[in-house]
Amino acid sequence: TTQEIIRKEIARWFVSLLIGVLTGLIACFIDYMIDKCSGVKYDYVREYVNKCVENFCLYTPFLLWVTFNAGIVMFGAIFTAYGEPMAAGSGIPQIKCYLNGIKIPRVVRIKTLICKVLGVICAVAGGLAVGKEGPMIHSGAVIAAGVSQGRSTTFGIDFKVFEYFRTDKEKRDFVSGGAAAGVAAAFGAPVGGVLFSLEEGASFWNQGLTWRIFFASMSSTFTLNVVQSYIKGNEWELSNPGLINFGKFTDSKYSGFEIPIFIVMGVIGGLLGALFNQINYMLTIYRMRYVRQRWNQVFEAMIVAALTATAGFVSIYFNNDCEPMKESSEEAPVQFFCDDGQYSSSANIFFHTPETSVKNLFHDQAGSYDIHTLGFYTLVYFFLACWTYGLSVPSGLFIPCILIGAAWGRLAGIFFDYCFPDQDWTDPGKYALIGAAAMLGGVVRMTISLTVIMVEATGNVSYGLPIMIVLMVAKWVGDFFNEGIYDMHVHLQGVPILGWEPPAMSANISATEVMSHPVVVFRTKENVGRIISVLKKETHHGFPVVEDYDPEDSFRQQFSFGTFHGIILREQLITLLKLKVFEENPNIHEILRNMKASDFRDTYPRFPPIQQISITPSERKMTIDLKPFLNQAPFTVSDNASLPRIFHLFRALGLRHVVVIDKKHQVIGMVTRKDLARYKIWRHHGQISMEELQISHS
Amino acid sequence: TTQEIIRKEIARWFVSLLIGVLTGLIACFIDYMIDKCSGVKYDYVREYVNKCVENFCLYTPFLLWVTFNAGIVMFGAIFTAYGEPMAAGSGIPQIKCYLNGIKIPRVVRIKTLICKVLGVICAVAGGLAVGKEGPMIHSGAVIAAGVSQGRSTTFGIDFKVFEYFRTDKEKRDFVSGGAAAGVAAAFGAPVGGVLFSLEEGASFWNQGLTWRIFFASMSSTFTLNVVQSYIKGNEWELSNPGLINFGKFTDSKYSGFEIPIFIVMGVIGGLLGALFNQINYMLTIYRMRYVRQRWNQVFEAMIVAALTATAGFVSIYFNNDCEPMKESSEEAPVQFFCDDGQYSSSANIFFHTPETSVKNLFHDQAGSYDIHTLGFYTLVYFFLACWTYGLSVPSGLFIPCILIGAAWGRLAGIFFDYCFPDQDWTDPGKYALIGAAAMLGGVVRMTISLTVIMVEATGNVSYGLPIMIVLMVAKWVGDFFNEGIYDMHVHLQGVPILGWEPPAMSANISATEVMSHPVVVFRTKENVGRIISVLKKETHHGFPVVEDYDPEDSFRQQFSFGTFHGIILREQLITLLKLKVFEENPNIHEILRNMKASDFRDTYPRFPPIQQISITPSERKMTIDLKPFLNQAPFTVSDNASLPRIFHLFRALGLRHVVVIDKKHQVIGMVTRKDLARYKIWRHHGQISMEELQISHS
Repeated sequence: TTQEIIRKEIARWFVSLLIGVLTGLIACFIDYMIDKCSGVKYDYVREYVNKCVENFCLYTPFLLWVTFNAGIVMFGAIFTAYGEPMAAGSGIPQIKCYLNGIKIPRVVRIKTLICKVLGVICAVAGGLAVGKEGPMIHSGAVIAAGVSQGRSTTFGIDFKVFEYFRTDKEKRDFVSGGAAAGVAAAFGAPVGGVLFSLEEGASFWNQGLTWRIFFASMSSTFTLNVVQSYIKGNEWELSNPGLINFGKFTDSKYSGFEIPIFIVMGVIGGLLGALFNQINYMLTIYRMRYVRQRWNQVFEAMIVAALTATAGFVSIYFNNDCEPMKESSEEAPVQFFCDDGQYSSSANIFFHTPETSVKNLFHDQAGSYDIHTLGFYTLVYFFLACWTYGLSVPSGLFIPCILIGAAWGRLAGIFFDYCFPDQDWTDPGKYALIGAAAMLGGVVRMTISLTVIMVEATGNVSYGLPIMIVLMVAKWVGDFFNEGIYDMHVHLQGVPILGWEPPAMSANISATEVMSHPVVVFRTKENVGRIISVLKKETHHGFPVVEDYDPEDSFRQQFSFGTFHGIILREQLITLLKLKVFEENPNIHEILRNMKASDFRDTYPRFPPIQQISITPSERKMTIDLKPFLNQAPFTVSDNASLPRIFHLFRALGLRHVVVIDKKHQVIGMVTRKDLARYKIWRHHGQISMEELQISHS
Repeated sequence: TTQEIIRKEIARWFVSLLIGVLTGLIACFIDYMIDKCSGVKYDYVREYVNKCVENFCLYTPFLLWVTFNAGIVMFGAIFTAYGEPMAAGSGIPQIKCYLNGIKIPRVVRIKTLICKVLGVICAVAGGLAVGKEGPMIHSGAVIAAGVSQGRSTTFGIDFKVFEYFRTDKEKRDFVSGGAAAGVAAAFGAPVGGVLFSLEEGASFWNQGLTWRIFFASMSSTFTLNVVQSYIKGNEWELSNPGLINFGKFTDSKYSGFEIPIFIVMGVIGGLLGALFNQINYMLTIYRMRYVRQRWNQVFEAMIVAALTATAGFVSIYFNNDCEPMKESSEEAPVQFFCDDGQYSSSANIFFHTPETSVKNLFHDQAGSYDIHTLGFYTLVYFFLACWTYGLSVPSGLFIPCILIGAAWGRLAGIFFDYCFPDQDWTDPGKYALIGAAAMLGGVVRMTISLTVIMVEATGNVSYGLPIMIVLMVAKWVGDFFNEGIYDMHVHLQGVPILGWEPPAMSANISATEVMSHPVVVFRTKENVGRIISVLKKETHHGFPVVEDYDPEDSFRQQFSFGTFHGIILREQLITLLKLKVFEENPNIHEILRNMKASDFRDTYPRFPPIQQISITPSERKMTIDLKPFLNQAPFTVSDNASLPRIFHLFRALGLRHVVVIDKKHQVIGMVTRKDLARYKIWRHHGQISMEELQISHS
């Protein structure tokens, strides 16, 4: 079996490579399409503007712009609302849940991927305040799930490869690699990708897995880099590692006395982030109540698209912040209403794809924007981004946050320059970067992976320190008021996600309080009819198997449920029923001889529901001997185990349920993920308390 | 208790800050002292050389150099051999064990720190082929242990602060922060530090902990940076984040066709690394057998020091590779025997601290060294470094590996330049970097943290990709032959360290095969005399507590040991005996009323041995009721749990022992870390097999 192990190991690495390469290619496709679409759009509008500035027909380009945006976004919204609603949003909350061990239906289907990719192209090309980076992470995860399983339910194809990877654990491992590859492709940050996967998902630092995740990230960023270098015409000039590249910060000095300034900016970022999340929270609840019909969702997306275009136009129209042309950024500045030899700085940030605007804000020289432009932009973009996140289109949140933060960060830089006119440290680009980090930290509240992502995307290690400080301060300040936006959306969906630590004051809550009780158990030799009726009635995934138990004895049931012998899973029972492994079956010996491990594996991950299993009334009276099939040594906890202890067991080993047994080895209860997720720590205005949430057992 | 939680949390952050700051300061101290000492040394020797070149008295500077080196190293060896032998080597293997959950005596004592710091200053200033980076990591860990416990056994001081951190888990968490802070200070790589701690130690990715580790790293690199900026006279010019700074690689282009070249270099690095480890392995075994006396160890260190100086002198003397002076590196080139206006390139790498030599090899222009210089240097330094690691002096391995790798990497660069004369990609500095990564990967076999450390130390994200590839290839090639050098030293010491994954073919080994049997158990009400005699006889750390058990019934003992009720630890028993919590004691109620949690905590981590507890013969007949004190809900496994399952439980939760119970809730055995560590996977020449090691139960 040495060979088998080596073959499996090589397959793992090969799949990781494939995941990386495909993720990189998808990223290139998205990037190329967006570039083309928005290129066409901006060219047309610019042409009409130039024509109409003198002919007083400015309503033409305005209407053209609005129509363009609303039209493209309409397609994106249709892909999402009618195609696959799971493709909406950034996908990071869903991936987070998936990596946490919670199955959300249709998250990693190929159909979701297609809708997500097409949708995000439309959303970004349609000028919405969205980024393509979040959806990229989701796309990587779907690719990983698809490639590693070697088949697609959407297309009904089964390549019959990698069948040994068809388990929850293996699939989840690959998905975390795919998410990392997505981050790597999006930001050119392979290390950041690995940390993202670890921070959001994997609870156990597994050396081999981390390696493969790293390899997938690496391949992804490399593929993207090579393809981009060909698209841009400098073959093998590998300096475009990601979709977004913040550009190199060459001048990287900061002094100690700027640290308090960074901290203050972190506080501002935290406050703004908390406000952002609060508004988005209320909006999401409103949407969940009133915007439920699909055409309503499409319509809302179109309205936001039209408004975004209007805001841009209004800003360019009324703001006459014209700056003399200079050799500043790589992209040509936009002249618009300005005199010849000048460009409109307002158009310079509104009339570009968000990624280009970020670069401009980071790298344009001091004096490129006046304070009115930046102030107006911050305000408008803040509310637009807030409104946009949660629309029925794929929408990343990183770029909008970075844009808002960069805008007010630049504003802060200008302010410092005004206060300390003769200092050389008041570089507005640097403050734009710090502001971006602060805003991002305040909204999404990730710290470690985000720091690394920012550092890698700026291509400069020296800014690591201030970025870290700013992100941490922003997170602390934000956490004082509410949760990060991803957690918020996870909780709004009522998903039983477990935190990193057990709730703070739960040390004297014991297993008997946490556990579900009574427990549905099976006997080692169980009646087929009872199995069927239980499976139809209960939705549990695993059932304890016991001896010395009488389902009719209702008195004893109140306390304990027989001597524990093991656990059997729903899918195992269904397979046993399907194969008719009944003791009284005359063919039982033949059936048992022909059974293979693949009988249990082939149906993964979508087992037929119990209703599809046909069992005759006479078969219902037969019995199944569960003993050969049950897991005889699952993890158990004793009745007086504390909540933190159970929590650590779940979190560290990724369990879904654990049986509670008493001193006599009797089953007395069962703890599921939902039972644990009920206990949530709650921080509000510095007070910590624990509350028991009501999560429906469905 | 909200306030208590918050206070404890603030204390945790404060301690992390303190750890970071102190680690940074220690790093500055080491750096400053080495700079001064070797500055004095090199100035003297250079002066005499310049004097003697014309007077044919070159034996004077030679003897001076040899005496200097041997003399300084003698002090370092004395500090280590006579002061604290634990301070020898890099300390990384010891820290690895500590973070893995294994207690090695005296690893984190203040005395070890002092010997380590003084020793490493002497070793580096004495010109040995060692770096100060590994010892820095160990120093950070000791500082963390000291600060978090708020007391020092070496000085007999107890500050009575942070008493709630006096548990194994809290202490280990802080130590991992200290190790990370050490990496951060050594390489200016805070992210690399975090990853190092995670890769080597923490098995469970704990969000809060990772944050604090990050914070400690950050504070450490910041402190170092600020102090260094003052020492160098440009206050607050924060561009020296670490002890070693590879210097910025500004020109960061590489093409796709270079990737095969990188892979080949990775293979070479892996081969050389395996050779290095093999030689060092044999040398270490020789040393363990024959160089056991302290004066022998000191003498060996002096010989190596003298030889290192001789090798340098011989190289400079016989090699007449003189290059015209140019504005190359920041440090002044050394003229030695060269004509005026020229400098000796051989002296340029031999006659400097290793850190400066690294920078020179990375950044000197093409043509600064000829192939003889580099070839000779590679060869000599390879064997010197190999001999040096394991001497009785604190000695980091990173810098020697980087130097060897940089030397042959540069050689490779020159070779490519010769093959492809008209190409612009044959930058020898770039190949020196790649060679350094290959050599490092081949010797130490870390991948993830090392990649990040290299990327952060070069200050350039663009080289991340090739560095990763090279490190991975080097590790794979090296793993084909033997283990990484740290693992090798861990295993040579017979420490039961657990790998990352359960051994490959262990799925059908069950708990009954792994467990230790028979088990020594206590009854819930146990006789004092029996407790004392058991504690004197057994060295176990935890004992199951049972009911229905008769220690005299030798027949039953062969199979099971009573109904399981919980676990009691050795230290708890000793405390109970010390306080005389005996049922028959007339003051029992008063004693119980006055008992506090701190009675158990104050003696941490050095409990008095059982021999020091005085018990009268009449007390020996009394009984203790263990029930109120035992841990009633420890993790247990059932008798047919598989080895991988038990392994994951140990690894993920950091357990030291687990009780095996059967279907009747009877204790039938106990699995300890040593029982698991017996099963080791063995890869040799591509074959995987499992072997059962013999580890003595001591």
